[in-house]
Amino acid sequence: MSLSHIRLASAHARLARSAIPAWRHFSATSTTHPDIEPSRLTVTHTTSPRQLPPSSKLLFGRTFSDHMLRIPWAENTGWGAPAIEPFSTLNLSPAAVVFHYAQALFEGMKAYRRPDGAATMFRPDMNMKRMNDSAGRLALPTFNGDALIECMRQLISLERDWIPKEPGHSLYIRPTMIGTNGTLGVQPPTEALLFVICSPVGPYYPQGFKPVALYGTTDAEYIRTAPGGTGAFKVAANYAPGVVAQKAAAKVGYVQNLWLHGPEHWLTEVGTMNLFVVFKGEDGVTELVTPPLDGMILPGVTRDSILALARRHTSGGKQLQGLPSLLKVSERPAGRLVELFGAGTAAVVSPVDKIGYLGSDIIIPTGEDGMGPVSRPLWKELVGIQTGEIASEWNFVI
Amino acid sequence: MSLSHIRLASAHARLARSAIPAWRHFSATSTTHPDIEPSRLTVTHTTSPRQLPPSSKLLFGRTFSDHMLRIPWAENTGWGAPAIEPFSTLNLSPAAVVFHYAQALFEGMKAYRRPDGAATMFRPDMNMKRMNDSAGRLALPTFNGDALIECMRQLISLERDWIPKEPGHSLYIRPTMIGTNGTLGVQPPTEALLFVICSPVGPYYPQGFKPVALYGTTDAEYIRTAPGGTGAFKVAANYAPGVVAQKAAAKVGYVQNLWLHGPEHWLTEVGTMNLFVVFKGEDGVTELVTPPLDGMILPGVTRDSILALARRHTSGGKQLQGLPSLLKVSERPAGRLVELFGAGTAAVVSPVDKIGYLGSDIIIPTGEDGMGPVSRPLWKELVGIQTGEIASEWNFVI
Repeated sequence: MSLSHIRLASAHARLARSAIPAWRHFSATSTTHPDIEPSRLTVTHTTSPRQLPPSSKLLFGRTFSDHMLRIPWAENTGWGAPAIEPFSTLNLSPAAVVFHYAQALFEGMKAYRRPDGAATMFRPDMNMKRMNDSAGRLALPTFNGDALIECMRQLISLERDWIPKEPGHSLYIRPTMIGTNGTLGVQPPTEALLFVICSPVGPYYPQGFKPVALYGTTDAEYIRTAPGGTGAFKVAANYAPGVVAQKAAAKVGYVQNLWLHGPEHWLTEVGTMNLFVVFKGEDGVTELVTPPLDGMILPGVTRDSILALARRHTSGGKQLQGLPSLLKVSERPAGRLVELFGAGTAAVVSPVDKIGYLGSDIIIPTGEDGMGPVSRPLWKELVGIQTGEIASEWNFVI
Repeated sequence: MSLSHIRLASAHARLARSAIPAWRHFSATSTTHPDIEPSRLTVTHTTSPRQLPPSSKLLFGRTFSDHMLRIPWAENTGWGAPAIEPFSTLNLSPAAVVFHYAQALFEGMKAYRRPDGAATMFRPDMNMKRMNDSAGRLALPTFNGDALIECMRQLISLERDWIPKEPGHSLYIRPTMIGTNGTLGVQPPTEALLFVICSPVGPYYPQGFKPVALYGTTDAEYIRTAPGGTGAFKVAANYAPGVVAQKAAAKVGYVQNLWLHGPEHWLTEVGTMNLFVVFKGEDGVTELVTPPLDGMILPGVTRDSILALARRHTSGGKQLQGLPSLLKVSERPAGRLVELFGAGTAAVVSPVDKIGYLGSDIIIPTGEDGMGPVSRPLWKELVGIQTGEIASEWNFVI
C-alpha cells in the first residue's frame, strides 16, 4: 500500500521540503555545557600491573592493557572529568538504553612503535571526525575531537609498554560511546559514557598475504545497510545483523560477504572493510576504483589514505615503486576486473581471489604473494608510514 | 559499479542458490547443552523492599520493581541456572560485545490484574516465539520459551504487588538478551545474559485517546529497515537509528514517523508500532488493512490480536458492537482512507489524525473521542480481554 493510493480527504501545503532539518542539526551537546577538558584528567594507576604477553599469544581483541579512559556525560551537566583508571567492568542499570536500543558507537585505531622508539597514532583526527558524525546520527553527545586525542595520548603514553615492538604489531585503540541512562523509551540518551580500551595485536596476516574468497550477498538474503540507514557511520547497530550473513558465507566456503546493493547488485563493502577494485580499461589504463561515499559506505581512514597515496602518485607527487604510472583513481564504476581488495584498520589491505555470486564463482587474479600490482605498492607505502619507517604528517606522535 | 559490469576471468557453477542456508539454521544453541531449566531457579529476596509508587507518579520505563530474573549462557556450557535476584546493576567488561556490535534484543509484554485479583500475562507464547526468532537472527542462543514463561511466572508472582490495580495500568515486562563476552570481533557471541526487568506503568493515554500527527519519512531522509535487514525482528539495532528521525519529525510538529518504503512510498510502520488503515471501497465495504509480514514488518502481538478479533467478527464468531458488519480484513493495499491507527503493546491502539507528506498534510478523520468506527470496538474488546473483564485463552494466568 502506498500513500499515492490514498485519495486525500484534505491536503494543504505547509511543509517546504527544504525546511526538513538534517540529522546534523540534532547533536545532543549543548554549547553551554562543559566539553571534554583534558586539564581535568585524573590518573589512577593499577595496583596489579601485568606484562605484555609474547607476540605468539596475542589474539585480536582478547588481551587488554592495564588501563582505560572513561569520560561520563549527562544531558544536564555536559562532559565530566576524564579519568584514566585500571581496566575494569562497567556497572550499568539493566535498563541502560545501550542494552535495549543499541545506543552505541565506536572507532578502531592503531598506535605504532616507530623505529626511534616513539609511539604514534595514525590520522586520529579522521577518527575523531567520524566518531562525532556517528554520535550526531544516534543523538548521542558530540565533543571536541582534539580534547579526546589529548586524553588518548596520555593513556597510550602510560600504556607505552603495551605496544608490541615486532614488525606488523600495534596497539589497537577502541574508543567507544554508549547511552547509559536506565530509562526505557526510544529517545535521545540523557546519560552517556565515552571510554577507550587498548588491545595489543599482531599482524592480520602473520604468514604473508592470503587472499580471501567472498560470497556475493544480495538483499534477497541479507543487507549491511540501505539508503537512509546508518551504513556511513560507525555505529554498533551495523554489526550484529551481519553475523548470520558471515556464518552463512562461511558455511559454503567463503570467508566474508561482498555486500551487493539493489537490483543492480552494486558492489559496496567487503565484510567490515571498504572495497577496492582494479580494472584494466580498453585503452590499457589501470584504474583503481572504490564506491563513492553515497551514504551507504563507511568513510574509512584506510580507504581515504589509499585514495590519497594513489592520487599523489598519479598527480606527480611521490611515485610508488611498481604502481603503474598510467593509473586512474576513481570513486565510481566500470572496466575489466584485474584486482580486488578490502581496506580497513584491522587488516590494512586484504586481497580477494574469489567471489561466489548467484551460483557461480568469479575468480580474481592475484600475484604469487597473494597481492596484485596495485595493492602491493600501496600497502607497502601505507604500512611504511604507519610503522614510522616513512615520515608522514599522518602520524600523530604520542 | 555492478558485478554485471565485470567480465569474468573464469566462472563455473558450484553453488546452487537453493543450497544457501537460511538464518534459521544458525541458532547458536547446541542440543547437547542444557536449556533453560525452571527447576534450577533460585530466589534471593531483596533486603530493602520498596513500595509501588502512586499511579500519578508512574512514568513509562522509569520505575522498576524490586527483583529481576537473570539467566547466563555460555557457548561451552549452555544455559545456566535461572536466578531471581534483587534489581541491581550488570557488571560487564568494557569489551563486552553488546557495547560494540549491538548484540542485543528484547521483548515488551504486560502483566495485568484481573478483577478477581489474579495476575495474567497476555499471549506470552507469541513473545517467546519472536524472542527466539530475534536470537536466531543475531546468532545469539535460542531457548525453550515455555521454560522462560515459567521463570517469568515466578518473577511476576513474587512482584504481584507491583502490578498497579487501577484501570488501564499494568506491569510492563522487559525480557532482554545481550552478548556479554569481552572479546572484540564481529562474530557470534560466546557468552550471553538473558534478563527480565519489570516496570509498573499507567495508561498510555491517561486523558482518553489523543490522535497523533505522523510525518511521512522516506529513504531520502531515514529508513527503519529494508529488505534483507532486521525489521521483522525485535533487535536493539532497529531502534537507535530511528531517534534522529523522530526528533526531525518532532521539530516540524509531528509526533512520530510514518515509515515509507522504496520509490513507491509503501506504508510500513508507525514509529515503533504496527500500522492499520481503514478504507471504504467503491462497493461501500469497510476494509481493515495492515501491511503483510514481508520481512520488513515486526510481527506484533497486538497486530496479530487485532487481525484475529476482526476476522472472528467477519467469520461469524463473536460480533463486536459498533464494528461494521460488512468488514473485510486484509494484509494488503488500496481504497479510500477512513481511519489509520498504530497498534503495539505500549499504547495498544494509537489513532492518527494527520500525516505530513512531501510538503503537504493529509488529514485523517477521527471521531469525537479521537478513535474511529473500526478501531473503537477492536480496542474495547482487546483491552477487555487484557484486563480480564472478557475471558480469553490469550491470558496466561500467573
